[in-house]
Amino acid sequence: MAGYDRAITIFSPEGELYQVRYAGEAVKRGWATLGIKCKGGVVLAAEKRKMSPLIDLSSIDKVYMIDEHIGIAPSGLHADARILIDYAREQAQTYRLLFDEPAEVEYVTKKISDLKQVYTQHGGVRPFGAALIVGGVDSHGPMLFQTDPGGIYFGYYATALGNSSSAILDYLEKNYTYDMDIGECTKLAVKALSLVVESLEVDRIEMGTIETATKKYRKLNTDEIKALIDKIKEERGSTQ
Amino acid sequence: MAGYDRAITIFSPEGELYQVRYAGEAVKRGWATLGIKCKGGVVLAAEKRKMSPLIDLSSIDKVYMIDEHIGIAPSGLHADARILIDYAREQAQTYRLLFDEPAEVEYVTKKISDLKQVYTQHGGVRPFGAALIVGGVDSHGPMLFQTDPGGIYFGYYATALGNSSSAILDYLEKNYTYDMDIGECTKLAVKALSLVVESLEVDRIEMGTIETATKKYRKLNTDEIKALIDKIKEERGSTQ
Amino acid sequence: MAGYDRAITIFSPEGELYQVRYAGEAVKRGWATLGIKCKGGVVLAAEKRKMSPLIDLSSIDKVYMIDEHIGIAPSGLHADARILIDYAREQAQTYRLLFDEPAEVEYVTKKISDLKQVYTQHGGVRPFGAALIVGGVDSHGPMLFQTDPGGIYFGYYATALGNSSSAILDYLEKNYTYDMDIGECTKLAVKALSLVVESLEVDRIEMGTIETATKKYRKLNTDEIKALIDKIKEERGSTQ
Amino acid sequence: MAGYDRAITIFSPEGELYQVRYAGEAVKRGWATLGIKCKGGVVLAAEKRKMSPLIDLSSIDKVYMIDEHIGIAPSGLHADARILIDYAREQAQTYRLLFDEPAEVEYVTKKISDLKQVYTQHGGVRPFGAALIVGGVDSHGPMLFQTDPGGIYFGYYATALGNSSSAILDYLEKNYTYDMDIGECTKLAVKALSLVVESLEVDRIEMGTIETATKKYRKLNTDEIKALIDKIKEERGSTQ
Amino acid sequence: MAGYDRAITIFSPEGELYQVRYAGEAVKRGWATLGIKCKGGVVLAAEKRKMSPLIDLSSIDKVYMIDEHIGIAPSGLHADARILIDYAREQAQTYRLLFDEPAEVEYVTKKISDLKQVYTQHGGVRPFGAALIVGGVDSHGPMLFQTDPGGIYFGYYATALGNSSSAILDYLEKNYTYDMDIGECTKLAVKALSLVVESLEVDRIEMGTIETATKKYRKLNTDEIKALIDKIKEERGSTQ
Amino acid sequence: MAGYDRAITIFSPEGELYQVRYAGEAVKRGWATLGIKCKGGVVLAAEKRKMSPLIDLSSIDKVYMIDEHIGIAPSGLHADARILIDYAREQAQTYRLLFDEPAEVEYVTKKISDLKQVYTQHGGVRPFGAALIVGGVDSHGPMLFQTDPGGIYFGYYATALGNSSSAILDYLEKNYTYDMDIGECTKLAVKALSLVVESLEVDRIEMGTIETATKKYRKLNTDEIKALIDKIKEERGSTQ
Amino acid sequence: MAGYDRAITIFSPEGELYQVRYAGEAVKRGWATLGIKCKGGVVLAAEKRKMSPLIDLSSIDKVYMIDEHIGIAPSGLHADARILIDYAREQAQTYRLLFDEPAEVEYVTKKISDLKQVYTQHGGVRPFGAALIVGGVDSHGPMLFQTDPGGIYFGYYATALGNSSSAILDYLEKNYTYDMDIGECTKLAVKALSLVVESLEVDRIEMGTIETATKKYRKLNTDEIKALIDKIKEERGSTQ
Repeated sequence: MAGYDRAITIFSPEGELYQVRYAGEAVKRGWATLGIKCKGGVVLAAEKRKMSPLIDLSSIDKVYMIDEHIGIAPSGLHADARILIDYAREQAQTYRLLFDEPAEVEYVTKKISDLKQVYTQHGGVRPFGAALIVGGVDSHGPMLFQTDPGGIYFGYYATALGNSSSAILDYLEKNYTYDMDIGECTKLAVKALSLVVESLEVDRIEMGTIETATKKYRKLNTDEIKALIDKIKEERGSTQ
Repeated sequence: MAGYDRAITIFSPEGELYQVRYAGEAVKRGWATLGIKCKGGVVLAAEKRKMSPLIDLSSIDKVYMIDEHIGIAPSGLHADARILIDYAREQAQTYRLLFDEPAEVEYVTKKISDLKQVYTQHGGVRPFGAALIVGGVDSHGPMLFQTDPGGIYFGYYATALGNSSSAILDYLEKNYTYDMDIGECTKLAVKALSLVVESLEVDRIEMGTIETATKKYRKLNTDEIKALIDKIKEERGSTQ
Repeated sequence: MAGYDRAITIFSPEGELYQVRYAGEAVKRGWATLGIKCKGGVVLAAEKRKMSPLIDLSSIDKVYMIDEHIGIAPSGLHADARILIDYAREQAQTYRLLFDEPAEVEYVTKKISDLKQVYTQHGGVRPFGAALIVGGVDSHGPMLFQTDPGGIYFGYYATALGNSSSAILDYLEKNYTYDMDIGECTKLAVKALSLVVESLEVDRIEMGTIETATKKYRKLNTDEIKALIDKIKEERGSTQ
Repeated sequence: MAGYDRAITIFSPEGELYQVRYAGEAVKRGWATLGIKCKGGVVLAAEKRKMSPLIDLSSIDKVYMIDEHIGIAPSGLHADARILIDYAREQAQTYRLLFDEPAEVEYVTKKISDLKQVYTQHGGVRPFGAALIVGGVDSHGPMLFQTDPGGIYFGYYATALGNSSSAILDYLEKNYTYDMDIGECTKLAVKALSLVVESLEVDRIEMGTIETATKKYRKLNTDEIKALIDKIKEERGSTQ
Repeated sequence: MAGYDRAITIFSPEGELYQVRYAGEAVKRGWATLGIKCKGGVVLAAEKRKMSPLIDLSSIDKVYMIDEHIGIAPSGLHADARILIDYAREQAQTYRLLFDEPAEVEYVTKKISDLKQVYTQHGGVRPFGAALIVGGVDSHGPMLFQTDPGGIYFGYYATALGNSSSAILDYLEKNYTYDMDIGECTKLAVKALSLVVESLEVDRIEMGTIETATKKYRKLNTDEIKALIDKIKEERGSTQ
Repeated sequence: MAGYDRAITIFSPEGELYQVRYAGEAVKRGWATLGIKCKGGVVLAAEKRKMSPLIDLSSIDKVYMIDEHIGIAPSGLHADARILIDYAREQAQTYRLLFDEPAEVEYVTKKISDLKQVYTQHGGVRPFGAALIVGGVDSHGPMLFQTDPGGIYFGYYATALGNSSSAILDYLEKNYTYDMDIGECTKLAVKALSLVVESLEVDRIEMGTIETATKKYRKLNTDEIKALIDKIKEERGSTQ
Repeated sequence: MAGYDRAITIFSPEGELYQVRYAGEAVKRGWATLGIKCKGGVVLAAEKRKMSPLIDLSSIDKVYMIDEHIGIAPSGLHADARILIDYAREQAQTYRLLFDEPAEVEYVTKKISDLKQVYTQHGGVRPFGAALIVGGVDSHGPMLFQTDPGGIYFGYYATALGNSSSAILDYLEKNYTYDMDIGECTKLAVKALSLVVESLEVDRIEMGTIETATKKYRKLNTDEIKALIDKIKEERGSTQ
């Protein structure tokens, strides 16, 4: 590796921005995070890892409310993700102040991605080591996007990030359909996460939904998550 | 490779800006993108790749409206392209504010190219990893330009970018004539794209036209693209 | 190690920020520092090393009052820690001025962490070589956080930093329970520290508590610490 | 080459600015460009290469009007040349605003050269990869200058740039005389270019003149160029 | 040494700031400097080396008055020390202007240390190559601090800097007691210095005291220093 | 050569600024340039090389008027020299505006030299690759200075620069005397130049004088130079 | 030597600033320069080297008047010295404007040294390659200081700089006494210089004095220097 990555954001002979690719490696090591878009709305879910017995998982956020109708689930360097989430919230509020209406989900996604792009092109700064799943409901209905460290974003029906994302994606590719209500969608999300979480307990999963009907972001409380987990364990019990 | 590319934008002994050449490699890896200028107007077309079964291709833009009479189809790093497209829109609006008339296609093309040139000459920044096909109709009639990462631009009758551009160019060189109306031109574009797209389906192609008659940019809807695809499949069916 | 750490904050091929990891090494060499959250409140405790017979340990602070209801115990480069502590005090005061109420413990923790993150992403500066245990009582009750050099923070029931933190953590994992009053909590802290301090004397331990009842930060005076040490020595005497 | 060129504009042990020399290599690879000064005025001419069958040569400028009485024909990196041409136009207009009279040809030439010099002496920027032939008629009569990438300029009776400039210069040295009218001068220019252009066709040559009599810059239209080409082909035909 | 110190202030894999450590080496080569805190007040003393027979030792300051009640004795790069001393004086005056009372000794010490820390964290600057012994009497009574090049400071009963500080520290550790009046303290200081100075003459020692009673900084004049030296020589004479 | 010259203006172990020395090499490759001070005034002379048959030597300045009573003859990188000459003219005019009298020759020389010094001490810029011979008549009578790339200047009776300066200097050392009138001085200058110029023709020599009597800078016209050349050829003819 | 000096002002493992040491080498290669302080006042003297027969030594200053009562004799890079001398003059004038009295000699010396220190600590600039001997008479009587490239200054009875300073210092150490009048002091200076100058002629020595009686800086004219030289030659003649 001839040092093309040392002067932070320069092209390699193959036309790659190595620093952006390496930032992607940080995302791959992140905690499992997923988002699903269906007729009933959008579900964002993430695993919480108990890195030490004395960690207080309730103090750790993995799914963030950005605006009444938008949520974000990040993966990668937590500190970098936090900066982007603050920025997203700021842009959403500024939009409301300017246009007196909620911002579109893609608008907020583009703003985050444009900020990320700047950090890949100007000397002296490194890219953000975080990818974000952005979900919400706006005038176009349920919307789901994923931004990568280099500032690229695409729309998805369902997507996953983090170190076991491929297992989750395989599962979702087999089981996903758009015609789900929010309940089915939430259940699908928990099932997908259950494949990879260290242990299927209520404090190991965090979930937020934006229902098409209400256009409101809501964090699922522990009872709701527990009910979902129990139903899945029950189903698994009966099939074993 | 003696490290001439490490201090971002310096000349190699042969008088080359390696970083600009490497940025060109990023363009070569881009999705197939083309533009055709004919008497009836200008067609911009691009392929959309389904990188994952759960990607929502409808959320991905590959041909962008810049002003009522101008469109752009980029290839290369999406994030870089997006910044240039925002910049092009901004310059077009500023021109209208200053001169109370639409900007010429070459004016917008030159503005983008000048910005690109700055990013090849000043320390601390890397070149843009995107080439843009700029099409539109102005006082000179139908105009078609292509800007490269280093800020060079030339006028074309037809041009193509991305990882299968040579196949498309071969096809266009054999089949192109200026005396086409917009319908013939659009059909030629789809035929050219059909040589390289993963599968000839409606959500895999995005097209925009600027007709000489209306001087208006218009995105072809899925029905129009489907009709074109069916006609081509039909023709192919009959010739096999 | 091909020099990925030389241009201060860039990603290595594995997606790591080596400078942040190395800053963590400075923390690991720090003096033993711990924090425990229990029903009765939060205890922050740290060892003081007598690096030279002529050092005046009473002049050395290891547990700092940030606001009436918040304290911080840092580990790592003292000079770096001091800058962060000044910054935390400033943010707490600014919050009071703006909102005429005390800041939440997580708010102050996040502010410190966001500052740390900035120092990992911008050229020309190195990360802070200090981790901080932030404890306090706010509207959510007793809260305990730990920020690392990269700007990541998590909530904890109990945590420890410095060169013998693993011994302390083992001990806490075995002996910790949330249902402790402040007295029990303080005793647990001294016991944990007593495993690692050079000699179990009153001037070798500094402690601060924030009781749930009073929401007030208080530094334990030497008599209180001496009483705790005597009780522990007594217990140990009877068990040998 | 021990890296003296890496920190952009520093002297090598032999007192050379390597980056300026390498920028000169970019000029040597440019399209053939020439300028001739004679009693009747100044001719600027350049070849246009058809890099692809679908390129629209009419959209490519190779000889630029700077002011009513001045023209420039650049060679080297087109993008760099364009920036210098904009700058030259700006300086010419500013001079008119300040002094209410047209700028001298050498004044504009010096302004361009001073800008180029700055880009060879300050860190963080690379030299311009373009040489310019500046022609015009002012109070001193017909004037012809050539600026190199390093900011040096000299006056010429005739000069040529680009990858076949030596062949052109040989021809001009043998056939040049000052006592020509603009017609003879134009013909000499086409003859010189005809030695190197890919094919002697009208869209492959661009020419501009500034006649001593009118002091006006004028671009030769295709008919005029065609007439010149035909005359030369005719002469060649008769001599074979 | 893989160059971790070249980009001035970055962490080595072991979590060390090499540039700070190397700055410490400059301090170790400094002239012997000490400070002693006792009930009667604080003594600052330093050796003056006659680097050349023609040097005018009376022109060299080694113990500086910062404010009426504070003095500083630096060791290391004189030029760096001078900048810090000016800064300390400035901070002390600013404090008086703001709060209309003298600054605490630790306040001035912290201000110097915070400035030092900044020079270890921001690119483009190197650390200060000087350590300072800061002594004075404030509301807390006699105070004595020592700041290192990295911005760390600790309180001391007695401390020493410079190339023979270990010999002095050994001596002080054996002979120090807090319960000394200023006379005894001054004598202890001279005895300690006498172990290391090139020759025990009056122009080779500079001393300042801040008496608890007066809270006033005073430089000992040559007679006072001569008297101390004579007493020590006398004692030594009687014991041989 | 371990790269001490790469970070532009740093000292080598021997206390040399390599970049300044290398800039001196550029001067040594310059065209022969000389200056002579005598009772009658000051002569500045330079050779003009016909680098190409089509170069218009009349357009090339080698001796520049700075103010009514001051001239400069540069050697080295023409572009760099031009910047310094503009700066000298500016300083001379500013002096007149401020003090309503002409600047002293040394004042202008010092201003140029101070600017050169700045470009040897601040990062990011390289030294000027040009040395200047500054001549004029002021209140001190005829004055002659030479500035080198590093900003050093000395006064001379006669001096020479460029790639054959040693031959010229040998000649001047043998034939120089202060007690010459301007005519004798001018002839000596031409004789000296005639040793090194490619061919002793009128367009190959440029000369300016500042006569003590008039204190006015004057460029010798071609007739005057031709007369001098003829006289020399004549003398040579008679002595062969 | 692993390149610790390349990033201009960083510490080597031994705690040295190599760039400052190398700047010192430039001083060692300087022309012989000395200063002597005695009861009668201060003498500053320097040799002038005739680097070329045609150099006009009368145009070269080696001893500079800074203010009515202060002079400076520099050694090292002339251009650097000149900048410091301008700065010294500026500070002296500013002091007069602020305090309506002449600045102390040490005040001016400290100002120069503080400026030098800044150029050793901030990135992007190199140290000054000049040491200065500063002499004058103020309220403390005759004062003599010497500043080194790193910004350190000490007071001296007599000191010398430049490539033969050790020979001069040996001589001064043997022959110096404070109780001299200005005449004796001047003679001692010439004798010391006479050991090292290329030839003991009047234009090879420059001297300035500041007499205690007058507190006025005065440059010795050639007659005075000639008289001193003759007396010395006479004495030498009689002793041979």
